[in-house]
Amino acid sequence: MPVARVVVDVMLKQEILDPQGRAVQGALARLGLDGVADVRQGKQFVIDLAGPVTQDKLALLNELAGSLLSNPVIEDYVLRVEESPNS
Amino acid sequence: MPVARVVVDVMLKQEILDPQGRAVQGALARLGLDGVADVRQGKQFVIDLAGPVTQDKLALLNELAGSLLSNPVIEDYVLRVEESPNS
Repeated sequence: MPVARVVVDVMLKQEILDPQGRAVQGALARLGLDGVADVRQGKQFVIDLAGPVTQDKLALLNELAGSLLSNPVIEDYVLRVEESPNS
Repeated sequence: MPVARVVVDVMLKQEILDPQGRAVQGALARLGLDGVADVRQGKQFVIDLAGPVTQDKLALLNELAGSLLSNPVIEDYVLRVEESPNS
């Protein structure tokens, strides 16, 4: 059973054009949603770990989130540790 | 300036195989992260609205999140309204 869940949100940097987000923004407006100022589309990774998140593991997770899970040239990431879904 | 931010997380249903998540799980393990029990990869939409989120708007947002932003046959979504980033 997982005892820790780590969620990594990856989003294009604000200064990078996001054509997918722009397309969604247009579609939302056409489907009747008023006042959409901006839409950004990103990725989300939900990582379930079998053990507790130690400091070493957290450091490695941050390193991997900034290299494997995101492209640091064009993307930012936010990493958070959540309560276990099963405990 | 946006006065409300709505975040929609879209994730494959638990019973649907997630090959991208599985690939990331393998890569994390190869790169030295022990005890990864599961990885799921999803999408995240960050929607900035120019006005407040009224009940009508929230209902429409939920409808669109369940049809335009996600495929209800294979995906679940979670919608949350966040504090304005600028207020």
